[in-house]
Amino acid sequence: MPHREVPDASPARLSLISRHLAPDYPINTPYAVERIPDTIDTSLLPKTQTRKMSTQPPHATLLIPGPIEFDDAVLQSMSHYSESHVAPGFVATFGETLSMLRKLFQTTDTASQPFIVSGSGTLGWDLVAANLIEPGENVLVLGTGYFSDGFADCLGVYGAKVTELKAAVGSRPQLGEIEKALSEKRYKAITVTHVDTSTGVLSELENLSSLVHRVSPDTLILVDGVCSVACEEIQFDAWKLDGVLTASQKAIGCPAGLSISMFSGRAIKALESRKTPPASYFASMKKWLPIMQNYENKKPSYFATPSPQLVHALHTALTQILSKPLKERFARHKEASDKIKKAIADLGLKQVAANPADQAHGMTAIYLPETVKQTDILPSLGKRNVIFAGGIHKEIATKYIRFGHMGVSVLDPARGDIDRAIKALQEGLSEHGYQKA
Amino acid sequence: MPHREVPDASPARLSLISRHLAPDYPINTPYAVERIPDTIDTSLLPKTQTRKMSTQPPHATLLIPGPIEFDDAVLQSMSHYSESHVAPGFVATFGETLSMLRKLFQTTDTASQPFIVSGSGTLGWDLVAANLIEPGENVLVLGTGYFSDGFADCLGVYGAKVTELKAAVGSRPQLGEIEKALSEKRYKAITVTHVDTSTGVLSELENLSSLVHRVSPDTLILVDGVCSVACEEIQFDAWKLDGVLTASQKAIGCPAGLSISMFSGRAIKALESRKTPPASYFASMKKWLPIMQNYENKKPSYFATPSPQLVHALHTALTQILSKPLKERFARHKEASDKIKKAIADLGLKQVAANPADQAHGMTAIYLPETVKQTDILPSLGKRNVIFAGGIHKEIATKYIRFGHMGVSVLDPARGDIDRAIKALQEGLSEHGYQKA
Repeated sequence: MPHREVPDASPARLSLISRHLAPDYPINTPYAVERIPDTIDTSLLPKTQTRKMSTQPPHATLLIPGPIEFDDAVLQSMSHYSESHVAPGFVATFGETLSMLRKLFQTTDTASQPFIVSGSGTLGWDLVAANLIEPGENVLVLGTGYFSDGFADCLGVYGAKVTELKAAVGSRPQLGEIEKALSEKRYKAITVTHVDTSTGVLSELENLSSLVHRVSPDTLILVDGVCSVACEEIQFDAWKLDGVLTASQKAIGCPAGLSISMFSGRAIKALESRKTPPASYFASMKKWLPIMQNYENKKPSYFATPSPQLVHALHTALTQILSKPLKERFARHKEASDKIKKAIADLGLKQVAANPADQAHGMTAIYLPETVKQTDILPSLGKRNVIFAGGIHKEIATKYIRFGHMGVSVLDPARGDIDRAIKALQEGLSEHGYQKA
Repeated sequence: MPHREVPDASPARLSLISRHLAPDYPINTPYAVERIPDTIDTSLLPKTQTRKMSTQPPHATLLIPGPIEFDDAVLQSMSHYSESHVAPGFVATFGETLSMLRKLFQTTDTASQPFIVSGSGTLGWDLVAANLIEPGENVLVLGTGYFSDGFADCLGVYGAKVTELKAAVGSRPQLGEIEKALSEKRYKAITVTHVDTSTGVLSELENLSSLVHRVSPDTLILVDGVCSVACEEIQFDAWKLDGVLTASQKAIGCPAGLSISMFSGRAIKALESRKTPPASYFASMKKWLPIMQNYENKKPSYFATPSPQLVHALHTALTQILSKPLKERFARHKEASDKIKKAIADLGLKQVAANPADQAHGMTAIYLPETVKQTDILPSLGKRNVIFAGGIHKEIATKYIRFGHMGVSVLDPARGDIDRAIKALQEGLSEHGYQKA
């Protein structure tokens, strides 16, 4: 049974205690612990614990498709004392973090180049659009929802001529259509949103890449992996990808604030052979490239000040991720996803991603019964200390909800997050009069 | 006398303890505490403390011109548990943070608009360059060093026609020259680096703004306040400024990772009346404007995911800053600066910023004696647990060092940071054979 030690005087601990004493103390959160009456001498209790007590105060479980729940050690890394961004200690941390990204993306090709830049995941689109595409060049965007539309908009801002091959809501463009589109003009790049966070649609990368390499070998293959990196398999080298963009706050499990990406030697060559300079200053890969190379070689270097605290947290998160085989991580996400999808089907509900082969493993977009509104069910879940997200695909926004299942919520079964969320969904729907037909 | 309570089992505390036990435990850092032998029953010691024990492990004092040393509560806010970026709790925190920025910038004009965007301080240049200036428009950049050159480069990337009015190293353009330059062509904007972090040169804003409003009233006045906001007086309304850009990790005292800015109604009008769309996607003020307005009105809103943890830390930092009169804060920075500058003069050393009226109050750039190298003195300071920065102005880079004196190191005299740094500098120079002539 978990137990508490004698608290010390640090404010974080005091805040934890004051929450324990609060009358509305939510007991079914992942951080709930049995409260030991003050009269018990805790020094007499056994020191072994079935589960380590969290250093986080009790709070509702965040099960949206990012940000996700964070591991204690990752969150504690966010409070790292101040360091110079060019001091040897931090340079080593940053360099190791870049090197660990190579492992996460499964690339050993020395021409591959990781980038970590302060900013939202969205900044990754600017990296691609302002650096790898020149004004007037064609880009084929595979349309899967809100986020592929966003990528297309961003490309347009920097002057790309965008063709968006849109699939019906809940689906993705098929290889035949893509082959046809590629045959119509010369595309500098094709972009694919690996998991479109608006629909939970998973795109297939391996066969897509084979197709592109076969029919349009000069076309760069650029993947928006914001909602897929660290929960869906991505073999950067084996699948011959040219760019994968992601963010810190999804399956990687580090707080938001970092744009993280990997580019191939071919992508770097496209950058270096531009006829025009990069169309952004802060998002200039030409400015950042030597900085990243220097950091990884443990040499101090400066273009813009990185966030040492976020980099420390990312270092901790990647160290945890790489401490076990990636295959196992992906399998665990698939298992949890299968369980959730079965529970959704058992409830008689449909997913936005209709075809099982197109369903993401780190999130599920769930159509609500016609009789239950989003504004009913989300607060019902909230009352049960479970936070899901509403819909954001403009054509169906009010008709569905999104359940994120990535990182610690999936990998630490002792938390019970997934089971509790499924139960909360069942109860919430029933509270609003829904019965399976 | 500070004392330690019985430790609990949390990893952060364990790491603190293990550092206490380390043989090379540095005792003259701001976080050093007298270590009580384990045989003493700490429960018998008096509970009053002359100074609160820091929750940060011992580390060398970071006295570079940003990032600076952080307050414990600010750092603890970085470890805030995960929240949805559109949940009411976080939306309220973000909204309050934006409102507090109005007070920090001393603006009550409802047309003024604060922005907080994930990214380095450098991103602020992109905000200005991609949104307030259209390709082909003239911008007058007041040249004070590395950072005004950077601002000019950034403006150029987005198509501005830049005229840089460069002053000699350690100086700043004078009002007469500026008036002459403004009379030569129509400038959309003038930019001034309030404190150029490369030289410690402080630019004067009030008279500059009067001049611009008199001789070129349509010209926007845009201030790079990265190294000045929260340590130098800035009266946004009274001085009729149109934009002030800053970053989280300098005098505001929050870890790096946020671009923070304030724009006037006039600047927002320039944005809204653009003939061309903003030239950046992630740095598009048109995209961010409604988001910032919604957050401040406590309405959830989404363009790109903010960093809840950094915003919490900024909220804590701004709450601390605004708990006392700003005048007092600026006066305390001036006092510490005067003391440091006197100590530098007493050592027979010169500052890069030659004219006392042009000397910043949050940093000092110090020319080294000819006989002492940067690569000698910085490690000597490091041995004494004081971290200064090297030079970065290309014309004099190896000849000077930079001493940052902002935030808690100045405002909490019990830390003794400033005195310790001055002593370390004296000892370090003497160690390398320097004697005042």
